[in-house]
Amino acid sequence: MRVKELMDTKFLRVYPEYTAKKTIELMYRKKRYSTAVLDDEDKLIGWVMSIDLALIDDKNKKIKEIMHPTEDVITLNENDPARDAVVKIVEYKVTSIPVLNNEGKVVGMVRNCDITKTLAKLYDIPVYNLFKTFEKEIKGITWNELMEAAAVVTKHTTGEEISPKEYEKRIENTTFGQALWACGGLEKFFAGLIKIGEIAIARKIAKRR
Amino acid sequence: MRVKELMDTKFLRVYPEYTAKKTIELMYRKKRYSTAVLDDEDKLIGWVMSIDLALIDDKNKKIKEIMHPTEDVITLNENDPARDAVVKIVEYKVTSIPVLNNEGKVVGMVRNCDITKTLAKLYDIPVYNLFKTFEKEIKGITWNELMEAAAVVTKHTTGEEISPKEYEKRIENTTFGQALWACGGLEKFFAGLIKIGEIAIARKIAKRR
Repeated sequence: MRVKELMDTKFLRVYPEYTAKKTIELMYRKKRYSTAVLDDEDKLIGWVMSIDLALIDDKNKKIKEIMHPTEDVITLNENDPARDAVVKIVEYKVTSIPVLNNEGKVVGMVRNCDITKTLAKLYDIPVYNLFKTFEKEIKGITWNELMEAAAVVTKHTTGEEISPKEYEKRIENTTFGQALWACGGLEKFFAGLIKIGEIAIARKIAKRR
Repeated sequence: MRVKELMDTKFLRVYPEYTAKKTIELMYRKKRYSTAVLDDEDKLIGWVMSIDLALIDDKNKKIKEIMHPTEDVITLNENDPARDAVVKIVEYKVTSIPVLNNEGKVVGMVRNCDITKTLAKLYDIPVYNLFKTFEKEIKGITWNELMEAAAVVTKHTTGEEISPKEYEKRIENTTFGQALWACGGLEKFFAGLIKIGEIAIARKIAKRR
């Protein structure tokens, strides 16, 4: 995934000749905490945060007198990997980052809430889907055999007596995130799945003999 | 994971009798975009954003005249599942949420950048670790056999000729996030692993005969 797939292309345009007053009203209306300052060609020339605007006494002051200069602004290129946006948001603790194209024009804004939304999607995938993938990929294994294997592994690892039916019911209401949390991390979740797979595959091969 | 494990317990304390001026200076110094307003017992009585402070003309105004009332503030309980914090950050597009205990006292602040950091950790797990788990969990399968199976599956699914050694080199430098992106999602990544497991296990069983 690239930054351009993450960014919001509908962003606030603030110009250096704007007064603080006008900018505050715009930001308030659009619910923005910070905004890029652009020249007439959409090139980035500065950055303003709402707290900078709160700090000044004279609201007729021009934005060009208040803004942080470009060299102090964290930016991204639209072709950067999306991961760079995550790394910069975390490292600099900013809420949004302007995105430039190769000509230095601002083409979008990456916002922390959009990043959170994107990152969180993975955690919300139902575990049920993963077992359905399991069933589909290992030809010759039935859904019931898979649930049986899962019940056996659960008994082995946690001591809990659970029927294949109960296991099925449980994974219908479990997300990947919840499963990771319950298992103690990706590697452990993965180890459990491997054990289930191993039992299911071994049974399938035993049946064939 | 619970909200209390995510929250920052070092947060700004702002009181209703503070002036806007004092609060702006505090928020500027601590780099906060928004802050909880507390009473003397740390109970939440309001919420102030930097843009609210930018909007007012008289900086001697008291915070109690500017703050949003408690009923309009998004909050979390320290015992809520961490997922609730993610859902609220995404739904309300806020940068931080005050965390209350059962007595209604503010005990921390959940910040979007901390959530991003936590969510992103999963994406940064090396795929190499997952294969090491594989090797450890399936007794009797060697690392080389696993890499051979992985090379076979890669050839099958993408047509790419890759040696087991090259595959090993590749996963040393690949994170879970990159692998998901390359495969097209969790289910597909998972399907690839299942195929590798199936081949490796089938070979192991064949060897035993």
